[in-house]
Formats: sequence, structure tokens, C-alpha cells
Amino acid sequence: MLVLFRNAVFIGAGRVATRMAVAMAGAGIKIEQVYSRTLDHARDLAQITGANACTDLLAITSNADLYVISVPDAALATVVSELKMTNAFVVHTSGTMPMEVLRKFEHFGVFYPLQTMTKEYELDFSEVPLLIEADSASYEERLAYLAKTLKSKFYHVNSEKRCQAHIAAVFACNFTNHMYHIASDILKQAELPFDLLLPLIRETARKIETDKPSNIQTGPAARNDVNVMQTHIDMLEDPVYKEIYQLVSKSISTQALKK
Amino acid sequence: MLVLFRNAVFIGAGRVATRMAVAMAGAGIKIEQVYSRTLDHARDLAQITGANACTDLLAITSNADLYVISVPDAALATVVSELKMTNAFVVHTSGTMPMEVLRKFEHFGVFYPLQTMTKEYELDFSEVPLLIEADSASYEERLAYLAKTLKSKFYHVNSEKRCQAHIAAVFACNFTNHMYHIASDILKQAELPFDLLLPLIRETARKIETDKPSNIQTGPAARNDVNVMQTHIDMLEDPVYKEIYQLVSKSISTQALKK
Repeated sequence: MLVLFRNAVFIGAGRVATRMAVAMAGAGIKIEQVYSRTLDHARDLAQITGANACTDLLAITSNADLYVISVPDAALATVVSELKMTNAFVVHTSGTMPMEVLRKFEHFGVFYPLQTMTKEYELDFSEVPLLIEADSASYEERLAYLAKTLKSKFYHVNSEKRCQAHIAAVFACNFTNHMYHIASDILKQAELPFDLLLPLIRETARKIETDKPSNIQTGPAARNDVNVMQTHIDMLEDPVYKEIYQLVSKSISTQALKK
Repeated sequence: MLVLFRNAVFIGAGRVATRMAVAMAGAGIKIEQVYSRTLDHARDLAQITGANACTDLLAITSNADLYVISVPDAALATVVSELKMTNAFVVHTSGTMPMEVLRKFEHFGVFYPLQTMTKEYELDFSEVPLLIEADSASYEERLAYLAKTLKSKFYHVNSEKRCQAHIAAVFACNFTNHMYHIASDILKQAELPFDLLLPLIRETARKIETDKPSNIQTGPAARNDVNVMQTHIDMLEDPVYKEIYQLVSKSISTQALKK
């Protein structure tokens, strides 16, 4: 199998770096080095990918085919400024940061996985859409090929649209998971098991595979059932949950009226 | 197979009545009558269950084994007051209304399906947890048996806890679906396909099958990444989406700090 990138260096050893480095190693790309400020983190990921660990940005090899920077957004600019191997192809994995933060490198791009990742959970990259962007058509092709090698769907998306996709992901994943958390908290107060809700959560996620969310919206807010909503608001003890209930219900009712 | 309820009458022909009547008919219970104020609705459900349609509450037969009232909460008291067959076993399917609204009947109970339903979608009742309650242990046993006949899991839950479960369901289903809607709206503005988010939505729903939502919370709010959150808030054009973003993020950050 043709592999455009024979080897790669990971700068960062968090959730995204871990899942991505493991996937690349599995696809035959040699992981040369893993950098993290925290030696244990660098070592953990280096160990499972057969790489060398390092904690010094200046110790990073200058002859890898690909450098993947996967650090918190707030740390990205500093890490970039400290890297010395400018004659290189460097990508970051951030949903929000513009590609241009990498312009000091000869070639640069973005390889953003639109998926929630956990260090400990195996993840099949065929379930990870990748939003790709590069400084040139040729390097964008290489990233597309890399995505194919990982069996991922990929989309050519510029930095502004990628940020919009990231915001959408925050709603669809992070906020959804918080709705699950609030539900579990309410059930706990009522001494009811969280399992009670699993079929409902499954069905809610299943329905939008084939229909628009606005078409399948149900519940008191969708039918503007003011009495039920008031009963619920009165019963909620947590002031923040009360506020979320009111605000999201208002948004649902407004949206239902538009239809 | 022993069927404790040989026949049933449905008062209401909406989403819940439709899916439940179809499931009961499939389990060998004869649906005698379907009432709706709207003749077309009564006829639609009567037709697929082999029942008679009626639009007059006074025309309801007095000798069915089970009466299921499945009408909007706001209409429940009126419907109950107009029903004449008091020597009967009557249940409602509401998440929020107390069982006691049915006390004029000789026996009464609640048969609340904790699931999102659509008239047009087939629904396997093994995926529908039922919250049951009755005026006596004997009738509660009959409802438990009915749930078993439909292959549903069932839980003995009193009216107050049922309402809490309903509130939890509003967060886990209705509010989650609205988060999907907002995400789809943001992607539409950016001219990106909604399909992009389906793997993420699947993974988010899958993870809580085996872990607590608070354990798997990811995203800028969970790591209190103030810069990313501010960028997102600035980019959101819809003022309601902005407000939801801020409020839910605050709730996630607060919850993350408690851990």
C-alpha cells in the first residue's frame, strides 16, 4: 500500500493525539516521536505506538514527513513559536484555530477530527469525519489520502467553516451529553435508575439518521403545553436546571411556531 | 397465552395512543373502540387496529376490560368528567398528571411509556420502558402483566417520581433533539451537510450505555477553555443560540469543577 507519509511526529499526547497516533500507527505510518510537557503522557503514547518520548520541543527530529500538533488551543501559538524545524509539513487538529497560525512552516494544514474522543476508548476511524485544509492543493491531496488510509470520510473545509462545524459539534455532542447528565441527576434525586432513559436516548439519536431534527421534535415545548412546562419548572430544584429548562423550551416553542 | 385484558378502548388517537394501540392489538388484545374529537384521527387508528371509530364520549362502550386515555394533559380533566362508564378500569398515559385525576372510576392507574413516539414510525415496545401505577396491588399486577405481554420493561413508580422521570426525559430527548436542531441550523448556515455530525451523535449516545455522562463530558466548557468559548459565542449570530451556549457552558463548567 502506498503511504504518502512514511513517518510522523506527534506534538501533544492528549485524547485526540492518542486516538489519532494509534490509528496512524495501525495504518502503517511509523510514529517517530511523541512530545508532551508531561513525561508520563509522552511515554504512555510513545509506548503504545512504538515511538520515542520527549519533553523538549528542541529535541524534535527535523526529518519526519508529517508533524501533528494536538495541544490545547491556548498553547498552540507558544508551541509553534518554539518549534525549530520550519522546513516541514505541519498540521494541527483544532476545530477553532485558523490554519494560518502555522504559516511559519514551509507547508501546513489542518486535520480536524469531528468526533468525541477518550484516551481509553478504542475508536474506529471510519466513524471519524475529518475536516481537512492545507496551504496548497497538493498538500490537501496528501491529507485526503491520509484520511482515506485511516478509512475516514473527509471534507475540504476552510478555517471559518471548520469553526462553525466545531460549534455545531459542541451543541450536538457536548451539550447533548450535558442534557444526559442533567437527566441522570434528576433521576438520581428521584431514586430511579439511569438505565430507564437509555431506550429513549437511543431512539432520539436513531431518528435523526433519517429525518430532520425539527421534524421529529416532541415534548411539552414543541406543542406549547404551558401547564406541563410550568409544572416541570416548579418541580426542578436546581436553579440552573430551571433556567436551562425555560430557555431551551422557549427556543423549541419559537422554532415550532416557525414551521 | 393468558391475556388479562381481552379488549380495550382508546380515548385519544395521537402519537402515544397510536403506537400503544397498535402494540396491544399485535399482542392479541382486541381494540374495541377508538375515540377522538377529530373523526379522521379516530378513523385512522380504528382502521389499523380493527376497531370502531367514535367522536362522542357518551357513545363509548361500558364493557371493555381496559380504557386507555391518551389525550393532551390540558384536556384530561374534561374528558374524565364527561365519561359515563365509571364501573371500569381506566388508565392514562401522561408523564405529568397524577393518577388521582382518575379517581371517579372504580379502578384506575397509569401506563406511561417513557419513549418518544411518532404516528408514522413503527416502534418495538421492547424498547419502551413503562412506568406503571394503580389504585390497588391487584390492578398494578395486571398492568405489569400487560407490560410483559408487550415485551416492555416496567417500573412501579408513583406519580411524583413519574413526573421527575418525565422531566428527565424532556432533557434527555426533547432538549437533546433541539441541540441536534441547533447544530443542523449552524451547519446549514455554513453550507455543510448534517451527515457530518451523525458519527459524533452516535458516539455520544453510545458512550453513556457504559459510563456516566459526567465521566465522559468533553469540549471547551468541560476544560474551561475560555478563549474557545468566547470565539464560539462571538461567531454565533442567533441571540437565543448565544444565550443557550453561555448558559449550558456555565452549567458544564460548574459541574466539571465539582468533580
